[in-house]
Amino acid sequence: MEIRALDHVAMVVEDLDQAVATYERLFAAEVEHREQLEEQGVEAAMLRVGTGRIELIAPVREDTGVARFLAKRGPGMHHVAVEVGDVGTALAELEDAGASLVDAAPRRGLGGHEAAFVHPESVHGVLVEVVSHGR
Amino acid sequence: MEIRALDHVAMVVEDLDQAVATYERLFAAEVEHREQLEEQGVEAAMLRVGTGRIELIAPVREDTGVARFLAKRGPGMHHVAVEVGDVGTALAELEDAGASLVDAAPRRGLGGHEAAFVHPESVHGVLVEVVSHGR
Repeated sequence: MEIRALDHVAMVVEDLDQAVATYERLFAAEVEHREQLEEQGVEAAMLRVGTGRIELIAPVREDTGVARFLAKRGPGMHHVAVEVGDVGTALAELEDAGASLVDAAPRRGLGGHEAAFVHPESVHGVLVEVVSHGR
Repeated sequence: MEIRALDHVAMVVEDLDQAVATYERLFAAEVEHREQLEEQGVEAAMLRVGTGRIELIAPVREDTGVARFLAKRGPGMHHVAVEVGDVGTALAELEDAGASLVDAAPRRGLGGHEAAFVHPESVHGVLVEVVSHGR
C-alpha cells in the first residue's frame, strides 16, 4: 500500500462561512475550492494552509452522516485523507490487509477527485479517506 | 501568521503497539520516533506515512487529559499540528487575532520540538498544535 502523502484533514463545522473566516484570520488559510456535494448533503471548502490542506464540511440537510456527527459529537475533526496513485488499487490492497471499507468502489469526492472511505472500526476510531488526484 | 505546513495529525489510541501495527499494515507507516512524555502522562509514536506524519498517543496514567478524552469519546482523532517558524511569535499573533491559548508559552513537545496548543473553543472544536522544528 503506497501512500504518497497526507492529502488533507477534514473538520465538521456548523457554519461554513464563519469557519472559513476563522481559518483565514488565525492561520492565513486560502480557499482553494468550495462546493456543495448533493449526494452527501454537505457543503465543503478546501483550504490551503501553508503547503497543507484543511477541508471544512457543514451539513445542508439533517438526514446525513455529517449532520448526525454534528448533533452527536459537536463540531470537530472528522477524517484524515491520504493520497494514493489509484483509489481502486488501494481499496483492493486495504481489503487484502483486513480493512473494512465504507465504499467498495471509488466515488466522486470534493473537486471531482476519486475517493473512498475506510471504516473507523479498522483504524482505531479514525475515519480515513483514500483519494487520488489522477496524476 | 505564517503557517509552513501541516506538521502532523494526532490520534488517541488505547494500545500504542496495536495501533502502530495497524498503521504499518494498512498504510505502510514507518515509526520515526517513539517516546514517553512524563509530564503529559502519555506514550506517543510519530509515524511517517508517505510524505506526511501521523502521531499516535496512548495514556500511561488515568489522571491525564488524554485518558479523559479516551474515556469520554473513545479512540479517534485528537489534534492537528501546524508548522511555524517560531512558536512564541505564532502564539503572540494568534492571541492578537483573538485566539484562546492552552499554552501561554512554548513547551517541549514530542522529539524535543517547541510546541503549544490553541484551545478548541477558538477553532470550532478542533485542538490545534503549533510546532516548530527550529529551522
